[in-house]
Amino acid sequence: MSKFGLYGKCIAQPGKRDELAQVLLEAASLMEAVEGCELYVVNITDEEPDAIWVTEVWVDQAAHQGSLTLESTKMLIQRGRPLIAGMEQIKLQTLGGKGIK
Amino acid sequence: MSKFGLYGKCIAQPGKRDELAQVLLEAASLMEAVEGCELYVVNITDEEPDAIWVTEVWVDQAAHQGSLTLESTKMLIQRGRPLIAGMEQIKLQTLGGKGIK
Repeated sequence: MSKFGLYGKCIAQPGKRDELAQVLLEAASLMEAVEGCELYVVNITDEEPDAIWVTEVWVDQAAHQGSLTLESTKMLIQRGRPLIAGMEQIKLQTLGGKGIK
Repeated sequence: MSKFGLYGKCIAQPGKRDELAQVLLEAASLMEAVEGCELYVVNITDEEPDAIWVTEVWVDQAAHQGSLTLESTKMLIQRGRPLIAGMEQIKLQTLGGKGIK
C-alpha cells in the first residue's frame, strides 16, 4: 500500500531563509517521536535562494493531519509563520524505495 | 555539512507510468547496497497522472555521479529510457531531518 508523501515548498521572507530552515529542522526533531512520520527532511537549493523544500512521508494522510494538532507543532507553526512569504505543496503517493519502511 | 539532494521528475510516455515506476523501484532496490545513497524514494501524484517523482539524498554529489557508472544502473537506465517522455530536476542541499543519518 502506498504512503502519503509531500513536497512542501516554503518561500521565506527576504533574508529569513536560514532562520526558517532552523525552525523546520526543529520540527524535524519533534517528528522523531511521531510514529506515523517516516521522513521529514529539510532542503535548500541554489536555484531559488529564498526557497526551502521539505520532503515528508507519512504512513497515511490521517497521521499527517494528526501531527498538525500537536501543541508542539502549533508552537513551531506560530514561530515560522512570520518568516514565510509563500507556500506550495505537491501531494504524492509514496510507492516505496530506500529509506522507507 | 549538507548532503546532495535531488527531486527528479520523470514524465512517462502515455500509459507507461506504472511500468516506469517499477523500473525505478528496482533502481531503489539496487541502491540498498550503495553506501553513499541515503534515500531513493519513488512517488506518483494524482496532480499529474504521467509523472513520477524520485526523492534522492546522497552523502555528496560525487557519490551520486559514481552510481550512474555502475553496470546495474546503466542496464536500468537502458530499460527505463524508452518509457520516458521528459525529465526535470531540482538540485538540493539537504540540511538534515528525520530519516537522514
